[in-house]
Amino acid sequence: MGCNLLKGKRGIIFGALNDMSIAWKVAELAHEEGAIFTLSNTHIACRMGNVVELAKKTGSELIPADATNVEDLENVFKTSMEVLGGKIDFVLHSIGMSLNVRKKRVYNDLDYNFLSKTLDISAISFHKMIQTAYKLDAINEWGSIVALSYVAAQRTLYGYNDMADAKALLESIARSFGYIYGREKKVRINTISQSPTITTAGSGVKGINSLIDFSDRMSPLGNADALDCAKYCVTMFSDYTRKVTMQNLFNDGGFSSMGMSLRAMDQYNKSFDPEELAEDGSEI
Amino acid sequence: MGCNLLKGKRGIIFGALNDMSIAWKVAELAHEEGAIFTLSNTHIACRMGNVVELAKKTGSELIPADATNVEDLENVFKTSMEVLGGKIDFVLHSIGMSLNVRKKRVYNDLDYNFLSKTLDISAISFHKMIQTAYKLDAINEWGSIVALSYVAAQRTLYGYNDMADAKALLESIARSFGYIYGREKKVRINTISQSPTITTAGSGVKGINSLIDFSDRMSPLGNADALDCAKYCVTMFSDYTRKVTMQNLFNDGGFSSMGMSLRAMDQYNKSFDPEELAEDGSEI
Amino acid sequence: MGCNLLKGKRGIIFGALNDMSIAWKVAELAHEEGAIFTLSNTHIACRMGNVVELAKKTGSELIPADATNVEDLENVFKTSMEVLGGKIDFVLHSIGMSLNVRKKRVYNDLDYNFLSKTLDISAISFHKMIQTAYKLDAINEWGSIVALSYVAAQRTLYGYNDMADAKALLESIARSFGYIYGREKKVRINTISQSPTITTAGSGVKGINSLIDFSDRMSPLGNADALDCAKYCVTMFSDYTRKVTMQNLFNDGGFSSMGMSLRAMDQYNKSFDPEELAEDGSEI
Amino acid sequence: MGCNLLKGKRGIIFGALNDMSIAWKVAELAHEEGAIFTLSNTHIACRMGNVVELAKKTGSELIPADATNVEDLENVFKTSMEVLGGKIDFVLHSIGMSLNVRKKRVYNDLDYNFLSKTLDISAISFHKMIQTAYKLDAINEWGSIVALSYVAAQRTLYGYNDMADAKALLESIARSFGYIYGREKKVRINTISQSPTITTAGSGVKGINSLIDFSDRMSPLGNADALDCAKYCVTMFSDYTRKVTMQNLFNDGGFSSMGMSLRAMDQYNKSFDPEELAEDGSEI
Repeated sequence: MGCNLLKGKRGIIFGALNDMSIAWKVAELAHEEGAIFTLSNTHIACRMGNVVELAKKTGSELIPADATNVEDLENVFKTSMEVLGGKIDFVLHSIGMSLNVRKKRVYNDLDYNFLSKTLDISAISFHKMIQTAYKLDAINEWGSIVALSYVAAQRTLYGYNDMADAKALLESIARSFGYIYGREKKVRINTISQSPTITTAGSGVKGINSLIDFSDRMSPLGNADALDCAKYCVTMFSDYTRKVTMQNLFNDGGFSSMGMSLRAMDQYNKSFDPEELAEDGSEI
Repeated sequence: MGCNLLKGKRGIIFGALNDMSIAWKVAELAHEEGAIFTLSNTHIACRMGNVVELAKKTGSELIPADATNVEDLENVFKTSMEVLGGKIDFVLHSIGMSLNVRKKRVYNDLDYNFLSKTLDISAISFHKMIQTAYKLDAINEWGSIVALSYVAAQRTLYGYNDMADAKALLESIARSFGYIYGREKKVRINTISQSPTITTAGSGVKGINSLIDFSDRMSPLGNADALDCAKYCVTMFSDYTRKVTMQNLFNDGGFSSMGMSLRAMDQYNKSFDPEELAEDGSEI
Repeated sequence: MGCNLLKGKRGIIFGALNDMSIAWKVAELAHEEGAIFTLSNTHIACRMGNVVELAKKTGSELIPADATNVEDLENVFKTSMEVLGGKIDFVLHSIGMSLNVRKKRVYNDLDYNFLSKTLDISAISFHKMIQTAYKLDAINEWGSIVALSYVAAQRTLYGYNDMADAKALLESIARSFGYIYGREKKVRINTISQSPTITTAGSGVKGINSLIDFSDRMSPLGNADALDCAKYCVTMFSDYTRKVTMQNLFNDGGFSSMGMSLRAMDQYNKSFDPEELAEDGSEI
Repeated sequence: MGCNLLKGKRGIIFGALNDMSIAWKVAELAHEEGAIFTLSNTHIACRMGNVVELAKKTGSELIPADATNVEDLENVFKTSMEVLGGKIDFVLHSIGMSLNVRKKRVYNDLDYNFLSKTLDISAISFHKMIQTAYKLDAINEWGSIVALSYVAAQRTLYGYNDMADAKALLESIARSFGYIYGREKKVRINTISQSPTITTAGSGVKGINSLIDFSDRMSPLGNADALDCAKYCVTMFSDYTRKVTMQNLFNDGGFSSMGMSLRAMDQYNKSFDPEELAEDGSEI
């Protein structure tokens, strides 16, 4: 956007995988807005050609890490501070994965080892990241930490499975640690709850296409895409939002505040046989 | 249900119009549960044969009142205390009306005199009712006041128009006065947010039939009906819920906590031409 | 209360430890209301004299179980159905424990093994319990499952530590499974969010006494106690609340809807040196 | 801040009264960020020297209007489009007043004419403003409308009186019209819920000083001030937040997500006589 909103800021962006990733768009935009940052992802992801290219393109160091491993996270923060020449101003957590979803274990037949992993990867990694930063005193005063969430944390969506519980836990961690990090170091922690977005991570969720269609018709502004989300992240990293903390912020075209829209209802009504409705005396 | 949950309790029930009304079901059930009460409705409504019959059937005095008129409300409370032989234990507010809805003035073309009336009849009447009771000291310690609301207070539903704003105001009044009446007299005030219900009041809302169908398929337990609501009201009037106050309680089969259900999504998907979907590479 | 609200119902009550426990009060009241039920707690707890006495007093079988162990839970449901002579109508989950709290590991220095245990014992046990019941088809249509929660799931309270995250996860599980169990078997699942209560479980939380005082002064009706909670649980187990599901219901004297009360503010103001305030030109 | 976040944008700012006003800070910052705009306030306010000076300083036309008068509002929008040379991109509504507060009518003794005025001035004016803009088609696609709110819309604060109900109504209007304006014209509507702020408007509220102290100690980042709010408003007017609509956004240092903080509890505990506490066996 060219406003230099993040001029002089140092960041760490976790979770950029390919150009569909929200984290990828955040990296591109943060670069454009004047930030310098490191990128982190799993060891495998960091060897992928396109991730290497993103690092090159944005002039960023790539630091492999298993986000559930505290030592790896220590390394990310230490290396980032060295490479970037000082403490960190912003962190993006864009990490989530459910083996129950992948292996098609439905919510009433969860594998509890998988559930443990879902929570560890998708939520507890956020606590580990923040606690590591806190212990290393790696974040500047008025720094900003953001994790990506989804409305499933508040409302059940068919097929989202144990990721809903992971997102609820993630948002709770943002509040719990937001209190302490705010009180002690003026660091703010928020989650951004994004429209369903076609990414590699999202593609395993059951019926994702019809959900995205429904979500789009329900939202007066339509679904927010990855770039919309990146822009919102950038405002949350900037100095314009210093007193916003412990919040879950919806970037969803209005979906979260909708009960039923005309567009979705019109589509829904097409599902009925018109004659059958007439017999019911329905006014449709 | 025969549990005598309201044995020895005195109440006032506002808004019973016919046997589709929630207030009507509350009156029948409260009678069955051992309560004595008066019924109040507009002067016109009180001359209707079926309302007179309900009064007879439940052994209740019928006290006409314009619920936006403080003197009328004073009369209701004074007469009720006389007739019932003591202070009141429970009050039901089941009153709502929008001239904008009736006259088909859409939300982006509201008539502001109509809006004033919507708010006065559907929300401020609740404050007037409570303030009148408070000034007359008409309610016993641990008494319970309930008003009926709808999820439109939190989420926008196409066609619900200015009634959404009225319900938001109503719920706020429940909190604001709930604080004072609780602190001073141990009286609790709550709203019950009910599934869309086919009543005379609800029938003017745009597309109500398809909304009710959608709501039913979204709710894991289906829509709650008027009798379900009456049962919930009775628990809120009973001594089992003495410390519950300033709450908005959903009696909606789970709708308020749903983002998308399998049943609603299946129906929604029928609206698409299957071949068209196939071309999209959709998995549906 | 003598209304026979649970006449003919069969239940399982997890977590009664001593007469300060909410689960204990639920057991006593459910017995009084005509229910039959089994009691379950850890193997150690089940050998304690008072728990044995509660079982005797209420004519209940005591079934030891580690609530994080699926086989143990299967045994509880199977044995309960045998002993009680049929499928179950209600289940209470009143289980929570944090080693981080016990071992005084603050939230910015969590032990992650302890965190795993906190989540497993306090939240995932709820999923295991429900999934076990679901697979055994152990619960009757229109059955009711309740877990106890706390407002820390929504708002951060100093010292509540990782239990806040556990409660957020617990409430999410209630929604997620509430959807499925409702859709498939008409079983409802809710959490009751209770005032801070002096129980053995609560006593490890930092500054619990001043928190309870503050909470009491903030709540227009004062804190709800264990017996108040038991009464509310009984309404949720009864047939009067069949369409209420996926909700978190506050039984807290109004605390959750308060920003600041006169009583709490008056007490708070006593903390200031009056002369100092005068110099500030404060109006207090 | 010098980022030119609002370069090329045209706005209308309602409610700047003096340099304590949030709207005043928004005007100064929007000017700095490259926007052009008009200022509107009551006829009396527009004759005050400092308001005239703000207009001069920011190169803005001053357009007097009674915000409850639709004709006046039409004039504001028409004149603004003429003066600024095109359709409007952003609107700030920073208007609120309660005669019940001013005349010290407590919430259980409201004057209903005053209540009508409170709602008309503080909330319905927002609908009138938006409906006027909508009918004149005065706002560009992706335009942004913001009104200022307060947490009293969700939680009762002693002394805030009928302004709590007005804010609840205001937030509902933002959702209801946000749906329609978003769907039809891609215009977003949000409210920003700000920390208690010492302004001329706020100074009538009972016990405002101790409330501000409590709020500050409860909020991990302390209260947000008027300038913090102005910065947040600017991000909401910018193109970085295009898909955010129908939201209530807390700019409050974390207050809204707090149940109890260490700092507030420490202060609260000073209110007790230490010996008295010791007798209670309290651990404080």
